Amino acid sequence: MTTIQVINPNTSRAMTAAIDRTAREAAGPGSTVLAVTSTMGPASIESHYDGHVIACFGDPGLAAAREIAVGPVVGIAEAAMHLAVFLGRSFSVVTSLPRTIGHTRDLVRGYGFGAACAGVHACDIPVLDLDSPSARASIAKACVAARDADGCDVVVLGCAGMTDLAAALAGELGIPVVDGVAAAVKTVESLVALGLRTSKRDEYATPAGKPVTGPLASFTLHRD
Amino acid sequence: MTTIQVINPNTSRAMTAAIDRTAREAAGPGSTVLAVTSTMGPASIESHYDGHVIACFGDPGLAAAREIAVGPVVGIAEAAMHLAVFLGRSFSVVTSLPRTIGHTRDLVRGYGFGAACAGVHACDIPVLDLDSPSARASIAKACVAARDADGCDVVVLGCAGMTDLAAALAGELGIPVVDGVAAAVKTVESLVALGLRTSKRDEYATPAGKPVTGPLASFTLHRD
Amino acid sequence: MTTIQVINPNTSRAMTAAIDRTAREAAGPGSTVLAVTSTMGPASIESHYDGHVIACFGDPGLAAAREIAVGPVVGIAEAAMHLAVFLGRSFSVVTSLPRTIGHTRDLVRGYGFGAACAGVHACDIPVLDLDSPSARASIAKACVAARDADGCDVVVLGCAGMTDLAAALAGELGIPVVDGVAAAVKTVESLVALGLRTSKRDEYATPAGKPVTGPLASFTLHRD
Amino acid sequence: MTTIQVINPNTSRAMTAAIDRTAREAAGPGSTVLAVTSTMGPASIESHYDGHVIACFGDPGLAAAREIAVGPVVGIAEAAMHLAVFLGRSFSVVTSLPRTIGHTRDLVRGYGFGAACAGVHACDIPVLDLDSPSARASIAKACVAARDADGCDVVVLGCAGMTDLAAALAGELGIPVVDGVAAAVKTVESLVALGLRTSKRDEYATPAGKPVTGPLASFTLHRD
Amino acid sequence: MTTIQVINPNTSRAMTAAIDRTAREAAGPGSTVLAVTSTMGPASIESHYDGHVIACFGDPGLAAAREIAVGPVVGIAEAAMHLAVFLGRSFSVVTSLPRTIGHTRDLVRGYGFGAACAGVHACDIPVLDLDSPSARASIAKACVAARDADGCDVVVLGCAGMTDLAAALAGELGIPVVDGVAAAVKTVESLVALGLRTSKRDEYATPAGKPVTGPLASFTLHRD
Amino acid sequence: MTTIQVINPNTSRAMTAAIDRTAREAAGPGSTVLAVTSTMGPASIESHYDGHVIACFGDPGLAAAREIAVGPVVGIAEAAMHLAVFLGRSFSVVTSLPRTIGHTRDLVRGYGFGAACAGVHACDIPVLDLDSPSARASIAKACVAARDADGCDVVVLGCAGMTDLAAALAGELGIPVVDGVAAAVKTVESLVALGLRTSKRDEYATPAGKPVTGPLASFTLHRD
Repeated sequence: MTTIQVINPNTSRAMTAAIDRTAREAAGPGSTVLAVTSTMGPASIESHYDGHVIACFGDPGLAAAREIAVGPVVGIAEAAMHLAVFLGRSFSVVTSLPRTIGHTRDLVRGYGFGAACAGVHACDIPVLDLDSPSARASIAKACVAARDADGCDVVVLGCAGMTDLAAALAGELGIPVVDGVAAAVKTVESLVALGLRTSKRDEYATPAGKPVTGPLASFTLHRD
Repeated sequence: MTTIQVINPNTSRAMTAAIDRTAREAAGPGSTVLAVTSTMGPASIESHYDGHVIACFGDPGLAAAREIAVGPVVGIAEAAMHLAVFLGRSFSVVTSLPRTIGHTRDLVRGYGFGAACAGVHACDIPVLDLDSPSARASIAKACVAARDADGCDVVVLGCAGMTDLAAALAGELGIPVVDGVAAAVKTVESLVALGLRTSKRDEYATPAGKPVTGPLASFTLHRD
Repeated sequence: MTTIQVINPNTSRAMTAAIDRTAREAAGPGSTVLAVTSTMGPASIESHYDGHVIACFGDPGLAAAREIAVGPVVGIAEAAMHLAVFLGRSFSVVTSLPRTIGHTRDLVRGYGFGAACAGVHACDIPVLDLDSPSARASIAKACVAARDADGCDVVVLGCAGMTDLAAALAGELGIPVVDGVAAAVKTVESLVALGLRTSKRDEYATPAGKPVTGPLASFTLHRD
Repeated sequence: MTTIQVINPNTSRAMTAAIDRTAREAAGPGSTVLAVTSTMGPASIESHYDGHVIACFGDPGLAAAREIAVGPVVGIAEAAMHLAVFLGRSFSVVTSLPRTIGHTRDLVRGYGFGAACAGVHACDIPVLDLDSPSARASIAKACVAARDADGCDVVVLGCAGMTDLAAALAGELGIPVVDGVAAAVKTVESLVALGLRTSKRDEYATPAGKPVTGPLASFTLHRD
Repeated sequence: MTTIQVINPNTSRAMTAAIDRTAREAAGPGSTVLAVTSTMGPASIESHYDGHVIACFGDPGLAAAREIAVGPVVGIAEAAMHLAVFLGRSFSVVTSLPRTIGHTRDLVRGYGFGAACAGVHACDIPVLDLDSPSARASIAKACVAARDADGCDVVVLGCAGMTDLAAALAGELGIPVVDGVAAAVKTVESLVALGLRTSKRDEYATPAGKPVTGPLASFTLHRD
Repeated sequence: MTTIQVINPNTSRAMTAAIDRTAREAAGPGSTVLAVTSTMGPASIESHYDGHVIACFGDPGLAAAREIAVGPVVGIAEAAMHLAVFLGRSFSVVTSLPRTIGHTRDLVRGYGFGAACAGVHACDIPVLDLDSPSARASIAKACVAARDADGCDVVVLGCAGMTDLAAALAGELGIPVVDGVAAAVKTVESLVALGLRTSKRDEYATPAGKPVTGPLASFTLHRD
């Protein structure tokens, strides 16, 4: 049995619940998924899970988590983009707010998808309002605009808060739509099934013990 | 039940058998794998499979197969590189003959992994001799050399003929080793599980019927 | 006397005839050009020619032909782009069908002209219909659109089927128009005149003999 | 009859003579070549030539010459690199002094050959000493070192002063060696034969008349 | 009077003192520098400073700080690299531990200096040990190795803990050595003197008020 | 006292005066600025200045000046772009004539800002007419168009002739506007204050004495 931790780095319960639903649906019969909101201290990632998903499209803390965790760690932005390029030559990303476009472009380039990414668009809805009644229509509209303006083969949903819309949007758009939460769960399952874990050479080697003071003192790492 | 066709584009029976073994081991409990040698005519890929793997590290015919197939098509080179970058910041590829290095570098750059790839090395053994007694040692030696010269976090095996060596080499090297056959099987499984298929917009749309004459006449596409 | 083989990889006689006309016009007084449709078996390229042109804008089989041929081999896409950048800072490509845009962009990037290429456009006419009465007007319209939208200095014709239109289009557009068939013939002539042949180091070295079975058995290479 | 002006931007008579020899040998039967040392004033390039070669591997003044000249203008660095990539997947450049390596790398990247260039090496001989008795051996040694260290398929000679060594070095190295003077002459011939001239859109449009004062007053452009 | 806050993101008092010394020496007569260790809550950066320096070579929190701060924010890695390329065509970075090499390469590429950076090297000393007696010699040795192996024109010190070594190392190496703390102080001074502040369009616009719970509750932003 | 020479490479007195005004305003209390028009002979840059600014947005002669000068040399295009990226994720350039767009894009890519540059636009006014009554409005219009079309965070003025418009335009646009003359003066001041000079390794090492004949004979370098 593969146990996968899916971490929602913000504290919205509704969003954690939606992420949990999608993750469970995506998980194979041999996987157990536990979606959690972020908590303080590295204990949350050092424990008994086989693998971890960071369920925020900015892929925050990915390198740090790979240092500390034993099992593989996958961000939903990287997972979604990696799967998207198997489905077509180009993809566009639809994110929440315009202020996230710059960072998303950085991720696109950093992951090597600069040539594959046809555009990054915002539906101009704050993350925590994505499940409001009107948000659904705005997201669909932004996806249609991205498809028509960019000529992209695939749309990538650029926020964990859109996680339960992928299938319906794919039907409306007529092209594949990739949700990062589901993509990341399958990627972790694949890595675990193949016995592949983060390389512990150099950068991602478990860090030496280091005292942390102040409000984050619980992040202190104890090594023997 | 997901049925996955794994195509060995050359005609070596021994190699098809090895590919079949790895693919079956990699496949999840809900998947059935059928490894075949390449046969003539698009019938081989148009049929009833849920997904397809092209089991040659050059990823030959990938775009053409995506045009014709209904289900997703994954090459073992792209699959291996995509999984490798979840495991570390850099990977090196160990291929068979030096003459394949140039094309491998083209694939690396084409897939967007130019910055992640620390080097491409050849063990200087023809594909069909990879299962000879001495080949095993030469491959291991090339992997060690790649690891030490490039400082890479991960090694990617650059030939389907090395498919059954990944686990043993990982143990010897102390860093993850990725085999493309297994990686591609898991990637197809992930795409099928998420209901994701090749985008049929523009490039990969099913081509119009077109008569083919001469020895390849059996490739003629009949459309209604 | 330089003898140049110009290979039309499809089987259209009308197109081979048009390619032949352009190639002969482009050839210098010391060159003999023979345009052929593709035939089966490597014999077609191993023979007595001083050089070879692959007259399809996708540059198919270029690397394989360089392995087998003794004289230089030039694709019409690469030849056209290489000449275009001597004429201005940017060029746009006008191809036949939208489904070819993705592969054309791959060629552009692969050849290093990502910064020089201002755009790739399709006139939306299948290759074999390019000599129909209405096609001529559609191609001109697409060229004008490319020139005006991209601000390009040069237009590259992205299909061998457009080979006899370059001069007339240049007159209409007011900027240079490059046809790949003519460009490739001149490039082969230049290489032959300077005694330059494909480097036979590593990748393009003549491959070892290898049996081929099935319909393509005539491709079997015999080496001593 | 195609008349081609080959401009040596320095004032060495011996070097102009060597350039002249190579250029005449490279020229086809329908071409007349005139090698000149640079002279003051745009008159030198505005006149009755069909095309121009700038015979210094730094390609100095290329953009300015394209503005002023009616016929095509080709630099020997760009010409050599463009021909080199038809002959193999990678080339290395062997230049004169180490201080030229940085600028050469800039040209390589600017022309789009960053991926094709395997290395830039200096033989550490000043341009004007390249025809000294010992220089010949140093150049050959640098070429051998480049070939062996870089694994390149082709060597490009990185200085007009090496122009008469290409054939002999190719024999010694066993891989193609490209001289830019010859390459540029053939490129100009090709462009002229195809009726292709610099695009006069925007950047390379003939500049408006502009008074120049001081020592370079003879560069004043008079337009009607 | 320009007041500049220099933030040491770790809690080492000795390192903050060294950073403070260098920053004061670099500051112009019209500037007041205050070096602080990182403290909790955005209050630390929202206050009355004209500009801010993040004195850790990983440039952590740079985007977040630009959102919140009114005055310009400069990281020492970006500042050092930006000044280095005015001094020569290439620079090498010498960092503390090998595990920082990967992130440093990411910064290099992200800032656009992929072509200018000749190499990234580690002296293999933990940040907090950089002022030990033996560390000084190890750093110098790593700098010499970088200079000789990479052929770089400039060395960039890749850790704030090396801030007081730049001048001495430059003398030993014979090429310029750039320290990021000093570079960042001058860059902030320049921006402030020219009246240039972070663009508040889209990404770096002041974020809306947002409640933060748990140990970091003091990071809650209150907006009217 | 830091003395900075600001060189206007054209011979317009009005423009030199405007450059002088901006440079003096930008200079700190410890700096003396002398704006000069270009004069013949390297004497103009070899003398007693602590640093030099080349006040033409094409950054002409930058590498040559770095060879000859002892103090740092900064071009206004590079200085403006380097400061711009500290202020936002993207910048657009507004130049004078459309014919300068191509070269500007070359500089952008050469300096590593290909990803940061959102666009290059021309206000279609010749350099020497930039201070005409109507020019001011055309420049503002081009800046607004660039801001709205590109979504850029910052505007860079792409001509020294616009040097006195930065502050007013910033007010109109609501985003930062960077003038290269001021940026370059501050960059030279920073380099001088930190004791940083051009690396004299390889490319920028002082060249050996070399006779120059003809109208530029005064450029002859005398070395001992």
